[in-house]
Amino acid sequence: MSDCSCQREDQIKSPWENSNCNVVVTGASRGFGRAFCLKLTEALTKEPGAARSINMLLMARDLEALNQTKDQVVTSKAPKSPTKVNVLISRPGLDMVNISEPAARAALQPLFDLNPKDQLEKETQWNLLVHNAATIGSVVLRADERTSIASLENYYRANLLAPMIITGVFLSHFAPFGSNHPPLMVVNVSSLFAMQTCPFMSDYCVGKAARHMYLKTLSTDRPTVAVFNYSPGPLDTDMFNELMLDHADPNRRAWAENLKKSGGVLIPDESARICVSWLRRCHYNNSGDGDAMKLRPESVVCPIHQKEYMDIWTGTNLDYFDALAIEQALNKQLA
Amino acid sequence: MSDCSCQREDQIKSPWENSNCNVVVTGASRGFGRAFCLKLTEALTKEPGAARSINMLLMARDLEALNQTKDQVVTSKAPKSPTKVNVLISRPGLDMVNISEPAARAALQPLFDLNPKDQLEKETQWNLLVHNAATIGSVVLRADERTSIASLENYYRANLLAPMIITGVFLSHFAPFGSNHPPLMVVNVSSLFAMQTCPFMSDYCVGKAARHMYLKTLSTDRPTVAVFNYSPGPLDTDMFNELMLDHADPNRRAWAENLKKSGGVLIPDESARICVSWLRRCHYNNSGDGDAMKLRPESVVCPIHQKEYMDIWTGTNLDYFDALAIEQALNKQLA
Repeated sequence: MSDCSCQREDQIKSPWENSNCNVVVTGASRGFGRAFCLKLTEALTKEPGAARSINMLLMARDLEALNQTKDQVVTSKAPKSPTKVNVLISRPGLDMVNISEPAARAALQPLFDLNPKDQLEKETQWNLLVHNAATIGSVVLRADERTSIASLENYYRANLLAPMIITGVFLSHFAPFGSNHPPLMVVNVSSLFAMQTCPFMSDYCVGKAARHMYLKTLSTDRPTVAVFNYSPGPLDTDMFNELMLDHADPNRRAWAENLKKSGGVLIPDESARICVSWLRRCHYNNSGDGDAMKLRPESVVCPIHQKEYMDIWTGTNLDYFDALAIEQALNKQLA
Repeated sequence: MSDCSCQREDQIKSPWENSNCNVVVTGASRGFGRAFCLKLTEALTKEPGAARSINMLLMARDLEALNQTKDQVVTSKAPKSPTKVNVLISRPGLDMVNISEPAARAALQPLFDLNPKDQLEKETQWNLLVHNAATIGSVVLRADERTSIASLENYYRANLLAPMIITGVFLSHFAPFGSNHPPLMVVNVSSLFAMQTCPFMSDYCVGKAARHMYLKTLSTDRPTVAVFNYSPGPLDTDMFNELMLDHADPNRRAWAENLKKSGGVLIPDESARICVSWLRRCHYNNSGDGDAMKLRPESVVCPIHQKEYMDIWTGTNLDYFDALAIEQALNKQLA
């Protein structure tokens, strides 16, 4: 075990240390999105290795709930942190079903305004886009019953095309192609159902599989950008309740209810904590020869316990339970 | 090798023997679609085990080319075959970009008219829907440059939503849920790019990954229906030429050109032959207790050489090259 570096993780310089950070989180009004914003703020404002500043842009339709997230973000800042935290709310709330390139640009504009393009190369930045917003789709129709074009289009606009378009617009500002851009990561909140099917949930399975692959193609086309597919596990959110109450299969509803009763459904905070802890592992291989195209996000992982995740920033899926098992193995070792 | 049953494959009763077959092939005007129609007709009309009749409905926008396919289908019938072959052309040509439930129904209506619903349970049928139509999408834009909502919507309508809607409408007629429906198979022409990325081809990779997952969810929701994801390999078609001539990466263009020069690009006939040969392996496990919901398509595969494909009819991917390797191993054994 001499090559195991798990115990030295805390000594790694955080990728956001002393950086001005720009963060966008979609679906930030509740559930995992809100929890992620809080855990991220905690991590980014904590010494040693705190960020210099954070501009966090929250997106969702429900502006009242976004204001609550904003208040909670401000108070989740680490005590006595030197980090300046500025929370923005995208107004009017962006409805992903009405996505378009101009709509995405308008929603991101407040963040762009704080970061004039000609200042970007002069600043030490660390930038992050989190695709969390998602809908579960139908939980009562079989795959062969999904024949309404209007309903299908709405689903894929919100769950597939919106993430694509927002990514394109975000990158065009913070990481123009060929430029010596600051470190940038795109996180996708994925699901086990991107890989395996669930009855009466073709929308969700197909949408997640497609989003997962989109992130992989993004990594192929933009290798200087880090992309991260994270499956958060079954979370105690409105979406889980929808599955538990409305799913067409009574066995599936009973399974969900039992999982909830037995404590098998995670609080979003716990899964968000694990997700954020992995962001620390992203570093840039800077060959120093000035060729922006050669920069690569590298994974700082233990070669013994995390070797399957060497290429995690190219879209490899990380599941909450796998990440937890790694953490538990480390804790056992430390005990 | 005593358990190897490869050599006994020809003795298996064909699933279409003495059946009235209804077949729909999209994108039948050229390339793999046309080749598939010809190879299928050859297989279904060949004794022993020929079909009683075939109604084959061809779909594409190019009606003139469809008429050529029709003529070729008629002449590809096995000599002295007892099978009645009837080729229909969907008019007006169905443009997948304008898909809707009524449009799909109108396109399939000629086939429905030949098969009144109240006759279905009285007839021995074998029915097949082949999703072959596809477009390559952009081969010049990076994933982060795909921000035109109109262009993205057109792509996913034609390549993802159209197959979904056509499947739903086809099944509602030939395999109503809960009915004791005749054997039905849905074939998806997939791609290696459903699993791995290719630069500047996010449309194609994401579309194929999503289609692949849709077929899997279909199998989960309709376990009595056989679903087959087949990756045909690099084919000498208009789509390959598009990649070779227009792809944004000169290295990728050169790779394609070299592959073509060196004979590494397959003629569609060869790949269609392999695809059709696998259809023979689909049989129904009929428990005979009269419970339609318990019927399952079963894979007749050799437990030694094809054991990875035991569940092939639930959407497992079969790649041309893997199928060829199996065939070659068999031929070696027979030699």
